[in-house]
Amino acid sequence: MRGAGEGAGKPRREQPLIATVIGDPAGIGPEVCVKALAAGNHAARHLLIGSIDAVRFAAAASGISPPIYQVETPDEVSGAVGEIAVLDHGSLARGAWDIGQSGAASGRAVIEWIRLAEQLARNGEIDGWIMAPVDSQSLKASGEISSIDDLQPAGTYLLRVSPSLRIVPITEHISIAEVPGTVSAAAVSSLIGLVDETFRRWGVNAPRIGVAGLNPHAMGTEEVREIAPAVERERAAGRRVEGPVSPDSIFRLAMEGRYDVVVSMYHDQGQIALKTAAFEGACTIYIGLDYVHLTVPHGSAMEIAGQGIAQHASMASAMKMAESLCFGRGFYAGDD
Amino acid sequence: MRGAGEGAGKPRREQPLIATVIGDPAGIGPEVCVKALAAGNHAARHLLIGSIDAVRFAAAASGISPPIYQVETPDEVSGAVGEIAVLDHGSLARGAWDIGQSGAASGRAVIEWIRLAEQLARNGEIDGWIMAPVDSQSLKASGEISSIDDLQPAGTYLLRVSPSLRIVPITEHISIAEVPGTVSAAAVSSLIGLVDETFRRWGVNAPRIGVAGLNPHAMGTEEVREIAPAVERERAAGRRVEGPVSPDSIFRLAMEGRYDVVVSMYHDQGQIALKTAAFEGACTIYIGLDYVHLTVPHGSAMEIAGQGIAQHASMASAMKMAESLCFGRGFYAGDD
Repeated sequence: MRGAGEGAGKPRREQPLIATVIGDPAGIGPEVCVKALAAGNHAARHLLIGSIDAVRFAAAASGISPPIYQVETPDEVSGAVGEIAVLDHGSLARGAWDIGQSGAASGRAVIEWIRLAEQLARNGEIDGWIMAPVDSQSLKASGEISSIDDLQPAGTYLLRVSPSLRIVPITEHISIAEVPGTVSAAAVSSLIGLVDETFRRWGVNAPRIGVAGLNPHAMGTEEVREIAPAVERERAAGRRVEGPVSPDSIFRLAMEGRYDVVVSMYHDQGQIALKTAAFEGACTIYIGLDYVHLTVPHGSAMEIAGQGIAQHASMASAMKMAESLCFGRGFYAGDD
Repeated sequence: MRGAGEGAGKPRREQPLIATVIGDPAGIGPEVCVKALAAGNHAARHLLIGSIDAVRFAAAASGISPPIYQVETPDEVSGAVGEIAVLDHGSLARGAWDIGQSGAASGRAVIEWIRLAEQLARNGEIDGWIMAPVDSQSLKASGEISSIDDLQPAGTYLLRVSPSLRIVPITEHISIAEVPGTVSAAAVSSLIGLVDETFRRWGVNAPRIGVAGLNPHAMGTEEVREIAPAVERERAAGRRVEGPVSPDSIFRLAMEGRYDVVVSMYHDQGQIALKTAAFEGACTIYIGLDYVHLTVPHGSAMEIAGQGIAQHASMASAMKMAESLCFGRGFYAGDD
């Protein structure tokens, strides 16, 4: 199912190689990366993308001293357990950031690291990459983007994954007034197909896809004109898809095991369900890329950065999730 | 706080009198009414409104034999523990319904009983009334209404109450496309005021009211132009109100105790939170009436009616909720 990118012709590595962009160097990102990697027990090879200075500072702040070495390209990563490879092309000057402080230099460096990770993934030099927490103030201060939304690759969708729910909306941060105009049969059909193919590639056979309605009790014109025909078309194409289902029932049905994933009609429809049912953050996985790409569910927590107290459980789970998807073993379900 | 209705000048009874419309006679409504009343332990006097034949049938089906007597007016209710008073003006002819079957005669009778209950409550002859489950097919077959929504009294709002959430939306079953046009400062302000006054009357002192935004992260034009000014105005009037709060956070905050009630901007915004967080049905209480009026959270369950197996826990809770609100003791919180 890889295919569109330049890396299509490359032989797949026996052991996946996963990169993690350290996020804002002044936040807790470097710390949770270092702690999660030093804890070992990884099924894939890993590398960090970012400032090796920030990584070394994070290790010291966390009271650990794993071997940390710099690489210029991903194929220099040894994969030795407990060692931490850092791909650092010098995007962030030494001393250009202060721990716990947002800053334009950090924002510019983060954007460069993200672009580097995307390029390596498109080229097939890495199998997937994880985004550690960025800082919206640093990004805005960089002057290069106006909002975090600008970092979302075109043509992608954001799948939220919690222990009990998987939800992907057809749109993100648009106003409710704009929502009905985006609910088209073409958009719904396209996302159903993309979800089905992506889940199969990740190791979920014949995924059961629930499609939410737009209106109360899924009884409105958009359901009849757009959503139902899209579901019918995709079912005729052999996909296991149901809908439109009443928006106030579908997430509970999914939690009870009826669906592997819910396609939702707007941002809050799914986010209200997800955040109300389980406040423990869900990781976000991109749909629509040839490679695995996900983000961790917490912020850069500037106020506690550099104190060695940041919890790395979310990052460790994200790494296990990336490994599981890269191996085509389905969604990582919890501690093992 | 009673006042607008004709009953305003009447002395308040020492012990509230609560009526329950038995719902569709062919469903489980009569059974759950009889079981809940026969179980005793009531702080108020109760009567049923409906067909005494249906009530007697329900008692027999449930294997219980409480004294059941007919009254013409509420003041004939003795209030003797374990006895069941039925106000029956002959709206449903004997033999005009079959257990487990929807029917036009049942639908017409239910609508007459509802109108009778409303009139008695407006006149102050009862302090509140509960609606047992109706059947939408019977109601439609009656030819008198086109939808259950037609039964909602004008100028009222529906407060959903679960053990962990209380939510009232500014609109009910309208399409998402229509929603933004209904989010006006006047509507939001009016509902905040009504909720505050109603909660105080029910015994919740200085209720903490959270107001949801309309758009993702509460960042849109409606928040700035309509919702924020309404919240500001009501806060200036001395009410404890916060908002607009991000729709995907506010319900979790409410569950964690930050708000006594959430004012939501559309039906599904709150219903998704409520039904995803706790599937055990929430009862629905009307806001905007001089008297207490609520409905139970389950349907008429025609398929099990008359078998004596219907669970009456929801109806028993609804009766306790009605009693607690009529006494001004706040929301009934669970078994006691």
